[in-house]
Amino acid sequence: MWDRLWIGVHLATLDPTATQDAYGCIRDGAIASRDGRIVWLGRRQDLPDAPESLAREVITCSAGIHAADPVGARMPWVTPGLIDAHTHLVFAGDRSAEFERRLNGVSYEEIARAGGGIAATVRATRAANEEELLEIALRRAQAMIAAGTTTIEIKSGYGLTLADEVKQLRVARAVGERLPVRVHTTFLGAHALPPEFAGRQDDYVTHLIEDMLPEIARLGLADSVDAFCESIAFTAPQVDRLFAAARELGLPVRLHADQLSDGGGASLAAKYRALSADHVEYVGEEGAAALAEAGTVAMLLPGAFYFIRETQAPPVDLFRRYGVLMGLATDCNPGTSPLSSLTATMNLASVLFRLTPEEALKAVTRIAAQALGMCGDIGVLSTGSFADFVLWDVTGPHELSYWIGGVTPIARVFGGVPDGV
Amino acid sequence: MWDRLWIGVHLATLDPTATQDAYGCIRDGAIASRDGRIVWLGRRQDLPDAPESLAREVITCSAGIHAADPVGARMPWVTPGLIDAHTHLVFAGDRSAEFERRLNGVSYEEIARAGGGIAATVRATRAANEEELLEIALRRAQAMIAAGTTTIEIKSGYGLTLADEVKQLRVARAVGERLPVRVHTTFLGAHALPPEFAGRQDDYVTHLIEDMLPEIARLGLADSVDAFCESIAFTAPQVDRLFAAARELGLPVRLHADQLSDGGGASLAAKYRALSADHVEYVGEEGAAALAEAGTVAMLLPGAFYFIRETQAPPVDLFRRYGVLMGLATDCNPGTSPLSSLTATMNLASVLFRLTPEEALKAVTRIAAQALGMCGDIGVLSTGSFADFVLWDVTGPHELSYWIGGVTPIARVFGGVPDGV
Ligand SMILES: [Zn+2]
Ligand SMILES: [Zn+2]
Repeated sequence: MWDRLWIGVHLATLDPTATQDAYGCIRDGAIASRDGRIVWLGRRQDLPDAPESLAREVITCSAGIHAADPVGARMPWVTPGLIDAHTHLVFAGDRSAEFERRLNGVSYEEIARAGGGIAATVRATRAANEEELLEIALRRAQAMIAAGTTTIEIKSGYGLTLADEVKQLRVARAVGERLPVRVHTTFLGAHALPPEFAGRQDDYVTHLIEDMLPEIARLGLADSVDAFCESIAFTAPQVDRLFAAARELGLPVRLHADQLSDGGGASLAAKYRALSADHVEYVGEEGAAALAEAGTVAMLLPGAFYFIRETQAPPVDLFRRYGVLMGLATDCNPGTSPLSSLTATMNLASVLFRLTPEEALKAVTRIAAQALGMCGDIGVLSTGSFADFVLWDVTGPHELSYWIGGVTPIARVFGGVPDGV
Repeated sequence: MWDRLWIGVHLATLDPTATQDAYGCIRDGAIASRDGRIVWLGRRQDLPDAPESLAREVITCSAGIHAADPVGARMPWVTPGLIDAHTHLVFAGDRSAEFERRLNGVSYEEIARAGGGIAATVRATRAANEEELLEIALRRAQAMIAAGTTTIEIKSGYGLTLADEVKQLRVARAVGERLPVRVHTTFLGAHALPPEFAGRQDDYVTHLIEDMLPEIARLGLADSVDAFCESIAFTAPQVDRLFAAARELGLPVRLHADQLSDGGGASLAAKYRALSADHVEYVGEEGAAALAEAGTVAMLLPGAFYFIRETQAPPVDLFRRYGVLMGLATDCNPGTSPLSSLTATMNLASVLFRLTPEEALKAVTRIAAQALGMCGDIGVLSTGSFADFVLWDVTGPHELSYWIGGVTPIARVFGGVPDGV
């Protein structure tokens, strides 16, 4: 006996083996869960028995949707739960006032001199206790869940001391315990140079490698390790040292790479078979080839591109030519990407980077799963994967990229359990 | 005795006479309604008596919000209900598949040859009956309401025959009857040339003036008259004829003007003291001066600018210099602006047009009210105005422009009645 069975739905499985079409569509389908996993899916007419005799609970979805619609019979579409594989979700403080000051003509430099920018977020995050930080993070995570996200990657990087990074990562783990969402944690101690180490960047990297990383690994607080490799942050050799240490501890890596210039970040990420290389606006031919060869996901972050008005879009055509997998994430953070909706992100990627709706949906499901090392478990509707999925009132999966500001799902399911957020 | 009293809130009244600051802020305020109107607002400590003895129902809002927050005491902010003063909300059909085809490399021309573009929307809207159209429109209006909109302007213009334009406008009126939202209807028969009049544009304008407009006025279906003045649509002399007829019938006008070129649309709008001139990307110095003099609102539509990747932003500095009032709306339509959230629109305007958060909020409240001829009734929190307002979990009104994809309100009030959409 199955736990639950959904009927009266179209399925966009994102499973290339399911059907011929791009989204792996099954019209008038059915999907069943048991013990948190998908145990059956297919055409409703192929169900082995009457629905009621198959599952303890049968959920008929088409009834919940509007009857009259000239577009056609209106069944909701089911997609895998969306995966946000790059966020800085856990932070305190408010930078919306800084946004307002900038629009009123105050320069970046003046704001930085007045203690604004990332320094303000680091100060506020250090000052907040774990409970406060958790409450803020839960609120943001709930907004993401409401928008259709079922798995979130959460980075540290606003603590920049062992205690404060541990605090951030513990809060990230707690988000996954308090809410049905799945959480992948990333240690990003190499996000920025903390004020205590001003002028001693190499010393900070040594501190990261010798003191922070081993302790965080020992506590089991990080599922991966990230660094910000850029002229304004850490150099490639510094990141190289850090990544070698991470791999020694058995931790996979990912990299903020080539956002503002081609600093060889993509090749460095590929060298360590990174899960993802993120931003990658300035990656060239060599970097693209390396990413493809390493199976490293190029994680596109159109929120930041849009918000800070970058002009160099990531080389999408180059990625297509080399077969680089393109992921897509919110980069949710207070300074450069205040964004929590993945469908809003898909729209940004389609409009600004010309990703097709098919590429955009794959980028927040199957490919994002790969960037979290969770292929097969999430990001796809197939027997054996977690029963994390989302129901949408749309005419087809392509419509998820269409609405500016995103689409809100009509229902969410985590591990087979409907959630009423 | 008041009907309802809200306490534990900060107020952004948008009333320049209320306080010194830009948003007309009253911290730790109170606001009361009776018979659908605001009857009292001010600082809570200035309430004339104990809350329970003043109103039949007292709603304490701060309790509903998170306790621990290092940002400070977390009371919700109340703003006037947002006003979407330019939408094409009532349409049938689906153009998201067209969006996908374009991203897959199909050209505008091929799509038009295959019967796509606005022609597809006109066909689908003509084919839908009133009931079907209403159901679709209600769904879209509900999304707007959920996003904080309490008044919507709705244009016709996808019917282009008397019967079909009447159908669209009746549906628009019905939206206002079936939902708590207020609706302002606009007759936009001069949206595009219907296929029946191919090659006979002047004849169609004559038909508009002699047959359609008088009947629509007689039926009381239009609160204003709009036209699309552009090289690809109607000429300035044609619009001039139409506007003269509209004014003769006592109907105010508004104009889609100067979106793709400076065709003198702004000056034409000003000549008829139009409520608004919309798009206005290409308005020059002369047009700006005319708009300012006429008190015509320049209605900025950043959704379309973003979605069709325009490069010429409206001349915001020029408007500031001339004191032109800037409004802001979604332009919700299937071809160039699939957008229903006004806070998402505010973010687009701030990021893409550099509107300050203050300008953006005024643009969707006080100034939008002026563009609907409803100054004082809506778009401001002041005694005597409708008790239409929205509660937000933000640190201040400036945060409404900050989030990419917009912010969702935590509660909405229509005519003093809390709404649980
Ligand atoms: Zn990031
Ligand atoms: Zn329009």
